[in-house]
Amino acid sequence: MSNERAYNFSAGPSMLPISVIEDAAANLANYKGCGESVMEMSHRSAEFKAILEDAEKNLRDILSIPDNYKVMFIQGGGTLQFAMVPMNLLRKSGKADYIVTGTWAKKAAKEAEKFGDIKIVASSEESTFSYIPKVKREDFRADADYVHITYNNTIYGTHYPYIPDTGDIPLVADMSSCILSEEIDVSRFGLIYAGVQKNIAPSGIAIAIMREDLIGFAKETVPTYLDYKIHADNDSTYNTPNCFAIYIAGEVFKYIKEMGGVAQMHKRNVEKAAKLYDFIDSSSLYKCPVAKEDRSLMNVVFVTGDAELDKKFVAEAKKNNMHNLNGHRSIGGMRASIYNAMPAEGVDALIEFMKKFQEENK
Amino acid sequence: MSNERAYNFSAGPSMLPISVIEDAAANLANYKGCGESVMEMSHRSAEFKAILEDAEKNLRDILSIPDNYKVMFIQGGGTLQFAMVPMNLLRKSGKADYIVTGTWAKKAAKEAEKFGDIKIVASSEESTFSYIPKVKREDFRADADYVHITYNNTIYGTHYPYIPDTGDIPLVADMSSCILSEEIDVSRFGLIYAGVQKNIAPSGIAIAIMREDLIGFAKETVPTYLDYKIHADNDSTYNTPNCFAIYIAGEVFKYIKEMGGVAQMHKRNVEKAAKLYDFIDSSSLYKCPVAKEDRSLMNVVFVTGDAELDKKFVAEAKKNNMHNLNGHRSIGGMRASIYNAMPAEGVDALIEFMKKFQEENK
Repeated sequence: MSNERAYNFSAGPSMLPISVIEDAAANLANYKGCGESVMEMSHRSAEFKAILEDAEKNLRDILSIPDNYKVMFIQGGGTLQFAMVPMNLLRKSGKADYIVTGTWAKKAAKEAEKFGDIKIVASSEESTFSYIPKVKREDFRADADYVHITYNNTIYGTHYPYIPDTGDIPLVADMSSCILSEEIDVSRFGLIYAGVQKNIAPSGIAIAIMREDLIGFAKETVPTYLDYKIHADNDSTYNTPNCFAIYIAGEVFKYIKEMGGVAQMHKRNVEKAAKLYDFIDSSSLYKCPVAKEDRSLMNVVFVTGDAELDKKFVAEAKKNNMHNLNGHRSIGGMRASIYNAMPAEGVDALIEFMKKFQEENK
Repeated sequence: MSNERAYNFSAGPSMLPISVIEDAAANLANYKGCGESVMEMSHRSAEFKAILEDAEKNLRDILSIPDNYKVMFIQGGGTLQFAMVPMNLLRKSGKADYIVTGTWAKKAAKEAEKFGDIKIVASSEESTFSYIPKVKREDFRADADYVHITYNNTIYGTHYPYIPDTGDIPLVADMSSCILSEEIDVSRFGLIYAGVQKNIAPSGIAIAIMREDLIGFAKETVPTYLDYKIHADNDSTYNTPNCFAIYIAGEVFKYIKEMGGVAQMHKRNVEKAAKLYDFIDSSSLYKCPVAKEDRSLMNVVFVTGDAELDKKFVAEAKKNNMHNLNGHRSIGGMRASIYNAMPAEGVDALIEFMKKFQEENK
């Protein structure tokens, strides 16, 4: 038993701002004196409606979401979005183009193949997804119903250094592991979706931000819950939503606003990541396999080149109160996920530990 | 602002045991000294695996779930189950028989019609769902792939006084609003599902308890997330589950165990409901429209016969710290949902208030 909180480098679920957690704890039995826990509130009560509306409003503010975009809170995570995207957006030609930059991008494409004619227009798999392919407008099929990208690749530690030009073809982006870490021109996308468990809230919802004119094309055979229109028309309360995660998400949106907004979060994230990458690049023991221009600010992957030593690193780090530094179970190595809520002190502590470990394992 | 907790009669989300809430609050920033909040834990960490395994084990214990049944925690609530049931269980004839005993039963049947040949074998709609139809084995189509019932009807306050005999046809039951309120012979059912937001946990998961031989029949065109086999084979962690709700569910299962199990909860529920129904039946102002033998122990509906007076009742009750006594928005009147976590004192307070209101509104 310890009263000390760890630096949790998990790729998701992951750290939340401690001020948000402490406020939630203080209000857990009786939210703002209303006599109920948010966990117990009717989703149709005035109290919860205020929570939901505030959450949406604050998200719109901090991401500058244009008025012609709907915001939806949907259960089922990214995995359900992988199905909802083709089931709703394959509306004319039945064709969609995917860029495959990692495990999740590949899974998204594979899921879409159940529902239409899917083309992988570019992939970096031949190089273990260590870079983001450069794709030009003419690489996409002219009649594609949409183009899908994974904007930040949690497992491989890459991030698009550009937004692909798809012309009039709606661009769909999975932003699960980078949403709210940087400013985004939402109008460049037809649909942005993100599981909340990395940068926003406890697991159990995905947020979908969708241009209105793209909503309403699901066929009648699409399950009701998988039709974006149902969620859009009912302000995410067609059925009982994940009220508690929406509440925490709303608190995190407020926290970001108070911290100076997404631009300020981005500045902090650039500083945190630069420190860590600079140390890795200058070290004799650690190596980051990712192309410099495509490196993620959120997920920093590195290896020693010795799988046994990597395991030792992860185990010793845990003893030093730095949790979940293991790479994804599919690739091994190390990964430090340093989302918005990871304090700069956590990155500093990690670098200090890495130095010490390097000295001890020369 | 008040430090007093309300008696919350919401149909769901609804009250949780105060001991569970207080324990969750105390552990919210640092779960049992592990350095992380449950809201922040990797779903693949040893800590969360223990939470998940304990939750399943305790649920199996208190419901006496046979070994040949899988337990799954799935996002999307009852609404997603309405689609998953036909998408997985219409596996031979493509036919299923539904008994329609309320709004949710009707919605379940309507959703199933997207996927197969659905027959409504009985309905109490002609009588505003005020009773449960008696259905015999020969009422079902011999080649039906399954029969679906809604065991407790949240909106209309009814509950099956019997388990329909379906012979070899698997019986599927939505138990969202009565699960864990009474002992159940699970082996009589092919699949039991329940949204957790009434008797178990904060909203955001449904629990599915499914006979193993019925798993694995989803067609390839079924979205991955909607295939029970994916959840069963991956112990509910194919993707990131709603970890926090699973944690609270596990705490509630432990609480029920400590309280003496489901049989003891049932005894308490019978006592609470009997008190309230007896008062209503003996009163001059209130009336319960439900056939006596079919009344729910969980959702007690009543009316004054005057819609304006009903509204006044609900508003004055709220001022007296009794929340959400309004009937469902589709039917009006009053409804007191008295799930496991509603203390007997809450029912006593409600009856006292009803007496006073009756005196004042003669």
